[in-house]
Amino acid sequence: MNLTHLDEKNRPKMVDVSQKNITQRIAKASGMITMNKEAFKAIKENSAKKGPVLQTAIIAAIMGAKKTSELIPMCHPLMISKVETDIEEFSDACTFKLIVCVKCEGKTGVEMEALTGVSIGLLTIYDMVKAIDKEMTIHQIILENKEGGKSGKFVRS
Amino acid sequence: MNLTHLDEKNRPKMVDVSQKNITQRIAKASGMITMNKEAFKAIKENSAKKGPVLQTAIIAAIMGAKKTSELIPMCHPLMISKVETDIEEFSDACTFKLIVCVKCEGKTGVEMEALTGVSIGLLTIYDMVKAIDKEMTIHQIILENKEGGKSGKFVRS
Amino acid sequence: MNLTHLDEKNRPKMVDVSQKNITQRIAKASGMITMNKEAFKAIKENSAKKGPVLQTAIIAAIMGAKKTSELIPMCHPLMISKVETDIEEFSDACTFKLIVCVKCEGKTGVEMEALTGVSIGLLTIYDMVKAIDKEMTIHQIILENKEGGKSGKFVRS
Amino acid sequence: MNLTHLDEKNRPKMVDVSQKNITQRIAKASGMITMNKEAFKAIKENSAKKGPVLQTAIIAAIMGAKKTSELIPMCHPLMISKVETDIEEFSDACTFKLIVCVKCEGKTGVEMEALTGVSIGLLTIYDMVKAIDKEMTIHQIILENKEGGKSGKFVRS
Amino acid sequence: MNLTHLDEKNRPKMVDVSQKNITQRIAKASGMITMNKEAFKAIKENSAKKGPVLQTAIIAAIMGAKKTSELIPMCHPLMISKVETDIEEFSDACTFKLIVCVKCEGKTGVEMEALTGVSIGLLTIYDMVKAIDKEMTIHQIILENKEGGKSGKFVRS
Amino acid sequence: MNLTHLDEKNRPKMVDVSQKNITQRIAKASGMITMNKEAFKAIKENSAKKGPVLQTAIIAAIMGAKKTSELIPMCHPLMISKVETDIEEFSDACTFKLIVCVKCEGKTGVEMEALTGVSIGLLTIYDMVKAIDKEMTIHQIILENKEGGKSGKFVRS
Repeated sequence: MNLTHLDEKNRPKMVDVSQKNITQRIAKASGMITMNKEAFKAIKENSAKKGPVLQTAIIAAIMGAKKTSELIPMCHPLMISKVETDIEEFSDACTFKLIVCVKCEGKTGVEMEALTGVSIGLLTIYDMVKAIDKEMTIHQIILENKEGGKSGKFVRS
Repeated sequence: MNLTHLDEKNRPKMVDVSQKNITQRIAKASGMITMNKEAFKAIKENSAKKGPVLQTAIIAAIMGAKKTSELIPMCHPLMISKVETDIEEFSDACTFKLIVCVKCEGKTGVEMEALTGVSIGLLTIYDMVKAIDKEMTIHQIILENKEGGKSGKFVRS
Repeated sequence: MNLTHLDEKNRPKMVDVSQKNITQRIAKASGMITMNKEAFKAIKENSAKKGPVLQTAIIAAIMGAKKTSELIPMCHPLMISKVETDIEEFSDACTFKLIVCVKCEGKTGVEMEALTGVSIGLLTIYDMVKAIDKEMTIHQIILENKEGGKSGKFVRS
Repeated sequence: MNLTHLDEKNRPKMVDVSQKNITQRIAKASGMITMNKEAFKAIKENSAKKGPVLQTAIIAAIMGAKKTSELIPMCHPLMISKVETDIEEFSDACTFKLIVCVKCEGKTGVEMEALTGVSIGLLTIYDMVKAIDKEMTIHQIILENKEGGKSGKFVRS
Repeated sequence: MNLTHLDEKNRPKMVDVSQKNITQRIAKASGMITMNKEAFKAIKENSAKKGPVLQTAIIAAIMGAKKTSELIPMCHPLMISKVETDIEEFSDACTFKLIVCVKCEGKTGVEMEALTGVSIGLLTIYDMVKAIDKEMTIHQIILENKEGGKSGKFVRS
Repeated sequence: MNLTHLDEKNRPKMVDVSQKNITQRIAKASGMITMNKEAFKAIKENSAKKGPVLQTAIIAAIMGAKKTSELIPMCHPLMISKVETDIEEFSDACTFKLIVCVKCEGKTGVEMEALTGVSIGLLTIYDMVKAIDKEMTIHQIILENKEGGKSGKFVRS
């Protein structure tokens, strides 16, 4: 199994996608941040009114998704046509789950855009409550599903 | 417990650090990526020769750390004076652990820089082997320790 | 009337344009900066020779237009195919009017690109003469007209 | 009266601030956006609940302020130590006024950072309601006051 | 012979490519860096094991190529579909030659992307060995060949 | 002779400059572009009036210098306090020489900023006349001199 991002001299390269067809690409990724009760409550109570921590995280996730090809060295620039987000709360576990769904009509998939959006969004939550809890954990960043391209539909088992 | 990034109208703000002293700041963060055997082996065997996946991840982590204030909405721009990385391998678990340590002489801490470096580095590993394994998980992104500033030394328990 | 940039939970989203057709998009925006006589004269006299204040503003406007999707959170990345600028002078009012026209073949309009170009260009003029006049005003930033897409042709009344 | 951003050959230059003292710099700028009743109401009613248009504009303003030296060709990079925003509503005039205050300990002032923040924030409001009103006007972008540096305190008359 | 990047008032403009056809574009550029024996040997010996100087340069070249439209004022944003690099060594001359090949399906050529990639890659080599040799020279940055578009195939004589 | 940008595992790192003193840093770099007579004349004749090719190149050089730490992976972010440029013309050789001088009060030198400014400026000239001459050469990019820091004054022999 070859690594597609390495050339025959084992040097990194940006994969040639010029001969690929333009198809509708969709990818959905998610990730979680777990914190202590105090931090979770601070976000929630505030959120009950105006929710600016989660709002800020969502905006950061969308803007981060757009920066993917600048951040991940071998990613192709893409013309994202949609970014949608959702946040689920698990009160017992003091955990937020951030979901980012990205669409694009292009020659290469958008899973990295979705995953980057998730990562930047979770880091933004971290930043905004780190004064309350220094032991938060970001975890379970995964690709939920993707569509489009030669490899077709994928749903995580 | 107030959220320091919100003003009295519950709007996000960039915290005022103008009255803080300039001190030596250090932060070390880490995170993991777990994959299937085939993907782990592809990185390792290649790594035995030239290691370009991990090299690329390290470079992406360093460049990502420098981009923190552009990505995380309420982060202050900082003049990072060092970024150092390390990678540990857990063969049985098919897992790489990426560690990023950031230094700065400034008015605010560098934990977000270290955490952002870790996140971008792990996403880069993901990108380069995603053709082999679509079910990888990025997890356990945490602050290991930090120094400097009013709150002093912190070591994760 | 719904806000198209908010989802059903009132969270910001990047609108889905994946089903839209690719059409020729044109947008022309303009804006003005008014200053005191001394500042106006400094730009003009210099301009009589080499015009670097206005030249710099034009270049900043073009480069700013290209940065729109990085600056405006919900804007889609676009492949701009033309940026053209013009500057009108109103000597009696000590005012410059900057006009920016942007073209693109895409799924979404380019009015934000034209407006962002105008704003960055005017700020650049401000920056370069602010040592002479601290009371300048940037004003009348508007969309002059646009073409393309479902909503068709628009000309400001 | 010379233009400080031009050298003796009339070419643009980034002014030499190396011999200036580091002082506390503060600048407050503001600007307005006027729209039709429908657009104003759409923002307000939504704002009564979660305010995401204005929240998004505030975040864009803060992030835009941090990008000033990338956007305005002759601006120095600066280590902003605070960005604070406020929004005033003028219901009769269907107008929002965005105020941005920036602080920095440095060798050069932060008025361009405050003005850029205001401009990007207003463009973001524009973007989010442009489907409702294509005839909005951004206007009255001014420096309210500034402090610090050789020229001392300035308050707009 | 007119300069295509200037309008009728001698102001810079981004050329209108909206009426051009989308064709496959390829451009190959190269450039060299010459250093003293000690610096050349330091890169080579290291390269014999892991080659991180040249690896880093290649990654910087690829990322730099993606940044072209941000750096070169009148360049159009492009959706690069491939970046490939190669490095040739001339031991007697203590010289490395960096070759960057870029592909794109678009309305305008990719020679600036290839040339920018070469320049950033060579500057990265310079940066990493400048402690050993302060008298290095970057030279012979040229377009090797290009394909696509109205002007067709070009091979440097 | 060790490479200072590699750690003990031969991985790239951003050098630790935290213990270095803040001193006044100056670096001057230069580079050349040689073209055919027609291209040289097109720039010159235009330059006789408004000089927008060279003006654009100067602005790009200044903005490029500010982007150095984003482009060169192991470069530290720096607070540049001055960028000054000059252009010399060699009519017989159809050559322009671009000189960029950068100043900074910091812990690390500014030679990469000066060299990056030169490279981006020359690429901008290339871009604006490439329709006339496809065989231009960028060459002789060197550090002319530098000052400040532990290694003291350097003047190229």
